[in-house]
Parts: sequence; C-alpha cells; structure tokens
Amino acid sequence: MVFDNRVYNFAPGPAMLPKEVLEEASQDILNWQGLGAGVMEVSHRSKAFMACYQKAIADLTDLMQVPSNYQILLLPGGAMGMNAAIPMNLMGLAKKDPQADFVVTGVWSAKSIKEAGKYGNARLAATSSAQQYTTVPQRNSWQLSADSAYVHICSNETVGGVEFDEPPDVGDVPLVADISSHMLSRVMDISKYGVLFGGIQKNIGPAGLTIVIVRKDLIGHAMPLTPTIWDWQVQAETDSMINTPPTFNIYFAGQVFEWIKQQGGVAAIELINQKKSQLLYDLLDKSSLYDARVDRRYRSRMNVTFYLQDESLQERFLAESQAAGLLGLKGHKSAGGLRASIYNAMPLAGVEQLVAFMKEFERRSA
Amino acid sequence: MVFDNRVYNFAPGPAMLPKEVLEEASQDILNWQGLGAGVMEVSHRSKAFMACYQKAIADLTDLMQVPSNYQILLLPGGAMGMNAAIPMNLMGLAKKDPQADFVVTGVWSAKSIKEAGKYGNARLAATSSAQQYTTVPQRNSWQLSADSAYVHICSNETVGGVEFDEPPDVGDVPLVADISSHMLSRVMDISKYGVLFGGIQKNIGPAGLTIVIVRKDLIGHAMPLTPTIWDWQVQAETDSMINTPPTFNIYFAGQVFEWIKQQGGVAAIELINQKKSQLLYDLLDKSSLYDARVDRRYRSRMNVTFYLQDESLQERFLAESQAAGLLGLKGHKSAGGLRASIYNAMPLAGVEQLVAFMKEFERRSA
Repeated sequence: MVFDNRVYNFAPGPAMLPKEVLEEASQDILNWQGLGAGVMEVSHRSKAFMACYQKAIADLTDLMQVPSNYQILLLPGGAMGMNAAIPMNLMGLAKKDPQADFVVTGVWSAKSIKEAGKYGNARLAATSSAQQYTTVPQRNSWQLSADSAYVHICSNETVGGVEFDEPPDVGDVPLVADISSHMLSRVMDISKYGVLFGGIQKNIGPAGLTIVIVRKDLIGHAMPLTPTIWDWQVQAETDSMINTPPTFNIYFAGQVFEWIKQQGGVAAIELINQKKSQLLYDLLDKSSLYDARVDRRYRSRMNVTFYLQDESLQERFLAESQAAGLLGLKGHKSAGGLRASIYNAMPLAGVEQLVAFMKEFERRSA
Repeated sequence: MVFDNRVYNFAPGPAMLPKEVLEEASQDILNWQGLGAGVMEVSHRSKAFMACYQKAIADLTDLMQVPSNYQILLLPGGAMGMNAAIPMNLMGLAKKDPQADFVVTGVWSAKSIKEAGKYGNARLAATSSAQQYTTVPQRNSWQLSADSAYVHICSNETVGGVEFDEPPDVGDVPLVADISSHMLSRVMDISKYGVLFGGIQKNIGPAGLTIVIVRKDLIGHAMPLTPTIWDWQVQAETDSMINTPPTFNIYFAGQVFEWIKQQGGVAAIELINQKKSQLLYDLLDKSSLYDARVDRRYRSRMNVTFYLQDESLQERFLAESQAAGLLGLKGHKSAGGLRASIYNAMPLAGVEQLVAFMKEFERRSA
C-alpha cells in the first residue's frame, strides 16, 4: 500500500488519522480476519464483530483507566445529539424541577445550554463570552445551585482553543464534560466526572460515533420522552446494540485504541502532545507577526488558535501553507483567524514543519 | 487489490456490499482524489467533500426519481432513531391531539408504534400478528382515523420477509414508510408517500447513516422537544450538516449510487432482484423439505424466509452452508428458521450457488 504525497492535515475534525491504522483498514474492508467478507459487511451479532467490540471497550477502559463503576456506551448522534440526550437522561435527577448548570466557554458549551433548555431549566452558571471565549471563568465566580442535576462544561473548546487544565471541583453534583476534541490526548481522572462524552471524529476515527462514559448510578433515570437509542439503561443492557451500531466506526476506533497502546498509552501520548503544542506556543509568544489570544493557563494542546497581527496577510498565509502541504489551518468562521488542530495522529514532524513554515513566513513578511 | 476467497454473505445487515465499490474505497481511505489525505480525514466543509455530498444527493434523486417537492435528509440514529424522530416532527400536524395510525406487519413496525407512543397517541390500525406476521392485513380492514397526522407502515419487514407489493392508498393522510431493507431494490412512486426512510446498512453501505425523503410541506412542524439533529427544518437548511455528518458513510453511499447507475438504474436492478428471489421461491415451492410461510402476494424479494419441515436438520444446514461459503443464513432469533437476505449487492451467481446447495441438501436429506 502506497501513500502518495501525504499531507499534514490540521483540520479540526474530521481530521488526520494514524497512517498505520488506515493501512490496515484498507485491507480489512476487503477481507477481514480471513472471513471472506469485509469488516463493513459482517453482522454486528457475529462472533468476529462481538470480539472486536469487546476488545475495543476493554482497550478504552484500560487506556482511560475507566473505573468499574462506570459504563462505556457507544451512541449515535455526535456531541450535538448528546446535548439533547444528556438532559433527557439526567435532568430528572434534579431535586426539584428538571434543571442543570452550564459553564459556557465557547461555541460548543453555548450550543449545549441552548439545547438543554428544551428539556428543563438550563442555567448559565458562568461564561467567558465577555472575554471572547479566550479563558475559563474563575471557579469562585460560578453560580452553582445545589438543586441542579449536573454541571456541564466543555473541557476543550475546539473553536476557541480553550482547554480546562484540570477538572473543576463542583462538589457532589455530577460534572458532565464534553471531551470531544481532547479525549485520549491527556490523562484524565474519570472519577472526578459523572459523565464524559465526545464524538470520535477529532481524535479517534471516522465521524459517526459518540463515546459516552457514565457513572453507573446515573443510569436509569431517563425521562419518558427519551428516544430508545439514547436511553442509557437500554443501551447499557444491550452492549450499545439496541439497533445496528456503526460497526466500521467501532472497528476503526478499536484499531486506534490499539495504536495508542503501541505508542505507550495516554501518558506517553500526552508528553508528545505537550511537546507539539509547546513548539507552536513558543513560536507564537516570540513572534511579532502572530497573536495568540487565549489565556495561557487555558491554552488548548489540541487546537492552537492564533491571528495575524496584520489580518490582510491571512489569505496569503493560507495559500502558501496549503502549497507547502500544510492543510486546514483556517480558523472557524465564528472566530476568524487561524487554527492548527494537532490531535494524536498529527506527528511531531508535522508540527515541526508548520513551525518552520510559520517562521519563514514571518521572516518574509517582516 | 486482491479479494481472497470472497464468500456469499446472506446476512440481513450489515450485509454484502458491491465488490467494485469496496475496491475503490480501499484506495480512497488512503488518498482521496489526490488530496494527500484519505476520505475519512477530509473536512465535511471542504470543497471536495461538499461536491461528493452534492453528487450523492443528485444521484439518489435521479435513481429514485425524487420529485422536486421532496427533500432528502441524511440523519444519524438509524431507522430506530427515526421511530422517535418521525413522531417528533410529524405528530404535531394532527388535527386534534398528537396522533398517528400504525399498521403492524412484523418486528420493525411493532417497534415503531411502541416508540411513537412516547410522543402522542400511536394507534394500531391493523396487524398481522395473529398470522405470525406472514402477511399484510387487507386494506379494507384497516381502522384509520382522519384525525391522524400520518399512517406508518414498514414496507419490507426484514425479519419476517414480508413486503408490500404496492403503496397502500390512505387518502390525504401522509403515508410514512420504513424502507430500510428494500430501498433502491425496486422502483417506488415517491409521490404516493409523505415520508420514506431507512438505514443504509442493508442495501447501500456501512451502518451509521439514515436516509429520509420527506415531502417539503411536512417540514417545519417539529415539536419543541425535538433534538436539533433531528429537526427536519434545521437539517434541510444546512445540507444535513448542523453537526459533523458521518462523512465516510455518505461517501460510500454515493459510490453505491454510482454503482447502481452503472448497473442500469433501479428498474434494471429490480429485474435482477425479481429473478434472484424467484429462483429461491421456485425451489421452496417445489420442495418437501423446506417450508415458505409468507403469503405469496407479500413475499419479500430482499429477505427470503423459510423453515426446514424437520427442524432438527437446521444446525446441519447452517454448518454445511457455511462450509460451502454461504454465510449468514440463520433466521432472526424472534422468528427462528432460515433467511437469505439477497440485497442488490448479492450477485445472481450467489443465489444460484445457494439454490444448488439447497437442492443438494434436500437430496441428501431425503
């Protein structure tokens, strides 16, 4: 199998995937495990697929050190689907009427609070909107209610590039975190959370699968209007197969889990991710051309956002970077500017090449 | 690219896919259109992917002759997800309280009526449960209400192998049909329906994408509790990309649409499907070993269900058929017996081989 002219793809998701996993998948979609059928063609009830599913769950449990009182669910709908599914499953736990608290630090948590409002009282506990979503509001400013069913955060905002440096202490109320764009990029203490969830299309695999890790005592409280496919109790009892799951996405995620293990696990990957992001932030901090606006404490290791001081240079930056084989560097339309998404599958060499390009671009623009 | 020892896979879904499409996908996941990135790695907002999406929609419109007053939506959640999404989007159209009529002819329509009951009055208009789901209740026995928002049918029941021979006349009330397991297998007059929907994992591609074809005047009536990702109006306005869609599944479906066009289109595929199913039903009708129980008028061309008169032979049948490279012939656990799912991608040669095996098995079992 030959990769012709493979580029470094800094897109925010769908995003670059590990080359080794793509190479295996290229074969497995033709003939998987010598079955005479490709992996997409095999029944989800077959022995081969069930073993694949079980291994993926076991490897994810191992990689994220998921405690035994947590359940991993694989659901359809993406993080945006979960914005509805989570209040449906959890808001009924509130001591009084259905309600929950939201900390809004960017585009994604803003979507979450809006959607949750369909199912109960979704309260704004704190927001950094006045700071153009460049930071996380100080914990002591959060207006939390003891009546809430849960507190929702997005622990890495893909658009703004704002990442929580540690899980906030919210007391006994379950903490719910959207980890779509930094899942498996750093060690997380699962026990600090009630629910962690994320789409896989950023750091894991092809779009179309959502991973939900939920503390088991939070299962079984779904509102009557909850669609069966999102009822955590139903899905927990059926290996997330109350209907046909996206088998290829599950297979692929499993292969990526295996790949992460081969890289030394999440702690080892985290060191590389620190190094990759540091290379970029060091450059940005020394530059007079580029402008990094996110509060240093909350700079994302996955989505490095920056601006050109002279915005008229942006089109040239994008055209020249693309010509140099560095793709997907345009910022989200709501934020403008530039963004380098450097998920696990982005090699250190890709970041080094980007840094070299940016230095050279700055030299030529001086 | 070499297919080693490819088997004939009669599984009901995930199911056999066209060899030519798999071969192309095997390359495209490494490097798509010379972009230096695989198809799963490319942004859904990129020019390349948007062109792929637009072509898939245009080809499906062409293949199914979708009239211009219909909208094609690509949604997450499978047909089981749509069992919730459809009442959420349509029941508000009812003249009085939210309500709809259901005709139950098997496992899937039974699931649909149950789920819809969460969102309004889901009335049983007719059922063939007393006939063990081997037929469709006569149209003049259906108890329909003029107050209903819609009438729901499953026009091909995958488990029982029961297929409507034509769309029933339900007057001015919109007809909603789950066509998961026979979409694109036969010419359908879209104008007879308000909504057609189906998961793609049977007759089109990898599990994880749902196609919904909806008459445009039925869009815009979603209940307030409808999750954004299933709000037909929102998705119609955003090319079904209010969040990251399952790009690989969309790419693959588009490739299969292209493949169907190369086969001569749906009418040409329908002739082959008639021939394939007729080969099996002819054998079953002549046999004293096998027993076909579905009412002849409603025999499915996609899912041919049958039993062994002497059920003690079933294990041997399954073991020997598998050894002969004929996979996935076990019936659904709720129905027992045997089932050959012969979707578009099953070549005539595969059915001929199955027929030969079955004749030989009967001879040896006499």
